[in-house]
Amino acid sequence: MNIDYIKDYGEVIAFNGAFSLKPKEKSLKKHIKLSNPTDNKVYTNVKELIKKTGLKSGDTISFHHHLRNGDKVVGIILQACEELGINDLKLAISAIFPTHDFLVEYAKKGIITQIDTNYCTGKVANAISRGEFKKVAIFRTHGGRARAIYAGDLEIDVAFIAASATDNAGNINGTMGKNAFGSIGYAMPDADCAKVSVAVSDTIYPYPLSNPSITQDKIDYVLMVDEIGDPNGIKSGTTDITKDPIQLKIAKTTANLIDESGLLKDGFSFQTGAGGISLASAHYVKEIMKEKNIKGSFIMGGITAYLVSLYNEGYFNNIFDVQGFDLEALKSLQTNPNHYEVSSSLYANIHTSSPIVNRLDCVVLGATEVDTNFNTNVMTSSNGYIMGGSGGHSDAAAGAKLAIITTNLIRTRKAIVKEKINSITTPGESINALVCEYGIALNDKTLAKTLKNSRLKILDIKELASIANDICGVCEYEKSNKRIVAVVEYRDGSVIDVIRQV
Amino acid sequence: MNIDYIKDYGEVIAFNGAFSLKPKEKSLKKHIKLSNPTDNKVYTNVKELIKKTGLKSGDTISFHHHLRNGDKVVGIILQACEELGINDLKLAISAIFPTHDFLVEYAKKGIITQIDTNYCTGKVANAISRGEFKKVAIFRTHGGRARAIYAGDLEIDVAFIAASATDNAGNINGTMGKNAFGSIGYAMPDADCAKVSVAVSDTIYPYPLSNPSITQDKIDYVLMVDEIGDPNGIKSGTTDITKDPIQLKIAKTTANLIDESGLLKDGFSFQTGAGGISLASAHYVKEIMKEKNIKGSFIMGGITAYLVSLYNEGYFNNIFDVQGFDLEALKSLQTNPNHYEVSSSLYANIHTSSPIVNRLDCVVLGATEVDTNFNTNVMTSSNGYIMGGSGGHSDAAAGAKLAIITTNLIRTRKAIVKEKINSITTPGESINALVCEYGIALNDKTLAKTLKNSRLKILDIKELASIANDICGVCEYEKSNKRIVAVVEYRDGSVIDVIRQV
Repeated sequence: MNIDYIKDYGEVIAFNGAFSLKPKEKSLKKHIKLSNPTDNKVYTNVKELIKKTGLKSGDTISFHHHLRNGDKVVGIILQACEELGINDLKLAISAIFPTHDFLVEYAKKGIITQIDTNYCTGKVANAISRGEFKKVAIFRTHGGRARAIYAGDLEIDVAFIAASATDNAGNINGTMGKNAFGSIGYAMPDADCAKVSVAVSDTIYPYPLSNPSITQDKIDYVLMVDEIGDPNGIKSGTTDITKDPIQLKIAKTTANLIDESGLLKDGFSFQTGAGGISLASAHYVKEIMKEKNIKGSFIMGGITAYLVSLYNEGYFNNIFDVQGFDLEALKSLQTNPNHYEVSSSLYANIHTSSPIVNRLDCVVLGATEVDTNFNTNVMTSSNGYIMGGSGGHSDAAAGAKLAIITTNLIRTRKAIVKEKINSITTPGESINALVCEYGIALNDKTLAKTLKNSRLKILDIKELASIANDICGVCEYEKSNKRIVAVVEYRDGSVIDVIRQV
Repeated sequence: MNIDYIKDYGEVIAFNGAFSLKPKEKSLKKHIKLSNPTDNKVYTNVKELIKKTGLKSGDTISFHHHLRNGDKVVGIILQACEELGINDLKLAISAIFPTHDFLVEYAKKGIITQIDTNYCTGKVANAISRGEFKKVAIFRTHGGRARAIYAGDLEIDVAFIAASATDNAGNINGTMGKNAFGSIGYAMPDADCAKVSVAVSDTIYPYPLSNPSITQDKIDYVLMVDEIGDPNGIKSGTTDITKDPIQLKIAKTTANLIDESGLLKDGFSFQTGAGGISLASAHYVKEIMKEKNIKGSFIMGGITAYLVSLYNEGYFNNIFDVQGFDLEALKSLQTNPNHYEVSSSLYANIHTSSPIVNRLDCVVLGATEVDTNFNTNVMTSSNGYIMGGSGGHSDAAAGAKLAIITTNLIRTRKAIVKEKINSITTPGESINALVCEYGIALNDKTLAKTLKNSRLKILDIKELASIANDICGVCEYEKSNKRIVAVVEYRDGSVIDVIRQV
């Protein structure tokens, strides 16, 4: 990183270690409102509402991604913006899915000129990679987005916050109503800091809404629409544990590694994703907990039916939920007393008194590429196209005592572990171990000592790269020298990498 | 108010109407921390902790008053400050009780030089009135204190937040532990904005604390002490409904007024204090609700056993609790699903999207003096000594559709209603009616029309003043022209009055 300045991003502070950047005292613009008892907040006409917010060309609008691939709110707002002649908008949205493919058209028309997100798939990712957005995209981590908002680095003019339930004062949640989606944790920083906050909902309850997740003091307007989302897209199908024997082997090895690390004891805390290997790892961890009668403290992450079952069966006492993936996660949040909805800031913001990730014993994470220094890419595919983003990857890896990357060594005939990778999302220093079908590579001297006499198969990561290389051949990169299309911001606001046009 | 500037307070914006001051966009210093997973938060040595916070002479320290007259935390911290040679402190505490009388000694020693509070009784009030603190005191409303903190007008260097329960990460509440006190709502702005936030507790639970009211991302350090308070002082004795026949008459008239106003119907919302007339008014309101089968929406205010009984018996569906007064309030907060703990900002901060006071139908309030323009004093006694403060008085009066002052016309041989009063706390424009044993005075033309044909006894407030005058004689004020000892700040940050040395 020898770049000092990136157009439409600003000055670059190069990444220099996960906990090395000393934060400066910032000055946050406080958007102070005068609330009068006679004020009416509820609107049913989207254009009338947008005019009321004062939104104008060049502004930044924000959204959360809790409606996932069923989101209809972004489309409703952007169509109205187009009709009102508002353009050159920066879209700050916590994640982008294929349901947002239509954004590519808004980029072409100059209505959306910049994307600020934590994760991006589908045609929007391709469009960013091809340089079809006028301005450089900014990719943050989940905790980094919260940090940027609270620090004033990401200033939001109008936050549009999809809520499955509201009352006429703007008390909102995501757990009630016909399109309930669960935790609304990613929207909490937006509600706290946006110049104007709008709740967008399709279900209104009498005042006061029971169990609001965001309260009326933080919501300026309520926009009622027909449907905030498509229930089929909101609920991902329940993710099943992988049946692939190689992936099951990796998962079993992962569980054994966690066990042998010494961390798997009463009070154990665990984060895992919703992917096949991750869930299988959770399953094998549970088997060990059962055998040894271990009672865990909390599970965290994208919450799925499987993780809820670990709570319901008594393996863990608490669930911290910044995002739910399925109906079981929603049901549990509605009913289980120790299933807590948490904001993305409480979850992972490095610039707070302490985010929950700092209390993690172990996190199991995926990767698209890992280099021999354990630097991990979850952002681009091997051909340089954007196909994801950090989400909570870097956050959980930095916080957890034991951060494990699980992956097949080779996937679709391509090496995952190799000398050089396409881009860096999470620094190797945050990763303690990598588990693949060939064994375990360690990046932690203390852990290496602990495991010295274990029966685990430990290899050097260079050996793994060499095995992969022997099978797949050297992966030649033509590093693009075209324009920078995306900045990969680390959780502390430094820049860990840039992505260039394909 | 022809004062532009007050030493140790700053520029004066004169009060000019309850909703007339347009707030300016402010710039808030964001105290950004870098949290590392290896950080330890828990201290047992108070001086070591204070050194760690960086507290120095001239700084501002804050406390909440939820421990009421049983608080021991202020004393613990100030003793350590004295031993460390730290002086010239500004004490920003949400209310001061006789248990804090020792602060007068700290004023004499120059350790505390300025008081910033919402309510003050006991020897500290007398000492302020006599000019024994070096710098002018600042009196705010409960909502005004929250406003000032979020706007950066009241900058807190170190917040010491008494918590009856904590874990080692700083998740805290006031509802668990041996000295549980209930809602911790007044401390929430401090935790959000202080440069350094310290939880002070005597009971530590395993991580994570269940039902935290303030979460670990907002607490930098945890100080463990033997006792945060004296349970006898924490719990006020349950306030009983008055047995005084005159006060009962006033209360009954108040309930009839509320009934005849047309507001007492399904969805009714109500705030009342813990005083004898207030509780009796609530009782008579309940009788009418029972007779007419009316189901209310929410009750709010300092929560007492009587208000909890209204919820438990089904007269109201919700309780909003910024502060509890007794054991029943605590029990209800612990167990009743629709008993909500709210921050002072959500409760009453005028500079938010909307505080809950804006949703009040009716509030019943007290007064020490009321002038013939309905301007109300709850700050000074008739001899000019400070003996209280607004607390939520001005906030609820401004928000409610119907704000009623209830008072005996004459108390201890002194007129309460009179031409001129000693100081103004709540502007007359916020008051709709005054009820005393002689009848009702109205300050609301619409209400006057509504009540035209009612059987209520309506008098002009000047008649009431005249009756009181006839009985007590003219109350002669010698307006002091000595130095200003206290600024009375209205909830929006303007100055509604000043108090001069007695």
